[in-house]
Amino acid sequence: MERKRVLIFSGGRLGGWALREIRTGDVLVGADRGALFLVRHGYRPDMALGDFDSVSPVELEEIRRASREFVACDPVWKDLTDTEMAFTWALEHNAEEIVLLGVLGTRWDHSLANVHLLRKALAAGIRCRIADACNELMLMDGSSPLTVSRSRFTHVSLLPLSIEVTGITLEGFQYPLNEATLTIGQSLGISNVLLGEAGHIRIRDGLLLVIQSRDEEEAEPE
Amino acid sequence: MERKRVLIFSGGRLGGWALREIRTGDVLVGADRGALFLVRHGYRPDMALGDFDSVSPVELEEIRRASREFVACDPVWKDLTDTEMAFTWALEHNAEEIVLLGVLGTRWDHSLANVHLLRKALAAGIRCRIADACNELMLMDGSSPLTVSRSRFTHVSLLPLSIEVTGITLEGFQYPLNEATLTIGQSLGISNVLLGEAGHIRIRDGLLLVIQSRDEEEAEPE
Repeated sequence: MERKRVLIFSGGRLGGWALREIRTGDVLVGADRGALFLVRHGYRPDMALGDFDSVSPVELEEIRRASREFVACDPVWKDLTDTEMAFTWALEHNAEEIVLLGVLGTRWDHSLANVHLLRKALAAGIRCRIADACNELMLMDGSSPLTVSRSRFTHVSLLPLSIEVTGITLEGFQYPLNEATLTIGQSLGISNVLLGEAGHIRIRDGLLLVIQSRDEEEAEPE
Repeated sequence: MERKRVLIFSGGRLGGWALREIRTGDVLVGADRGALFLVRHGYRPDMALGDFDSVSPVELEEIRRASREFVACDPVWKDLTDTEMAFTWALEHNAEEIVLLGVLGTRWDHSLANVHLLRKALAAGIRCRIADACNELMLMDGSSPLTVSRSRFTHVSLLPLSIEVTGITLEGFQYPLNEATLTIGQSLGISNVLLGEAGHIRIRDGLLLVIQSRDEEEAEPE
């Protein structure tokens, strides 16, 4: 099939910022309660999946009726989280890019497992990011540079996903780095700021999380 | 000085669950807005520190008057986050154990940097954990086993902090593991459940995050 961008709406925090990610031609996937969010906002999920343990029978019927495809799994035997099921579906359907929405929430184990999916996407050569009201996360390795553009966020933080990241060089940032090394436990990369419209990041070895963020009070009401 | 437990109250999400961590003899450290939380709940911080950019001048004076020690830093020159300053203070004061409260919030860069502090504590041989309303995080390596006791949480998840963790063996859990390997991007370790009052975790190599959690709706009102 034609390679398309896949937006995954999951059961964590969602809001108006998530709907504004939608562009014509995107494939919309709703995982569990994320499917209900799409339906309630007038969107027809191309695929709705999950164990749906967070919606009522009436809501489930509403999702089933509104979705082009629908897969409900028994929560007892499934090994994957709902988000991971949706992510795997996107990989299998040859996604050009994957955007994960509503995958950060109060349960830190689920949130971190979802951040770890960025590594799977990178390994598969598929562009992927996680977005919520206050954060946008991307993962990079040494194979190609990453460009960060000015956006609704105020800060750019660099945090290692591997124990160590070497050869970090920044262009266009207030606090420059040149061939720097970051290890887990150092906060040197926190709260950098773009000088102009774009900043460029290169690394030599390791896996680096690039997190754009802003403080809650600056986030627009939903 | 006598080795004591140090509780760090930071500017993220705090609530009644955090106050219930306090035991007689604990050293109470308030970082930025976390100091105000202590003062407003009738506690006298042994140390209040940070750039205090999240409190008003009146609130700052309130914190200064109520605290045994008080250090305010210029936000412009400081390299450390407020939580990291408090954590460093605890290390320098020979803490027996460090409990980080209010260090998980909406900004994912700050939250993850705070989780990374667990590695610093482990390297220093100091017991350390992060707690909030729905989560408790600990970090372990291969040097000694970890025991998880039944508590206010429902699930126990295992997530690698290093790219790979080998030789994972569980005792007392619903989903057993024996000499298993977990890598970043696999969700095999998510949502395990204790069978009895305690479970035991051993690993051979790597760094493993042990996250106890519960869903928000089960959390008690604050």
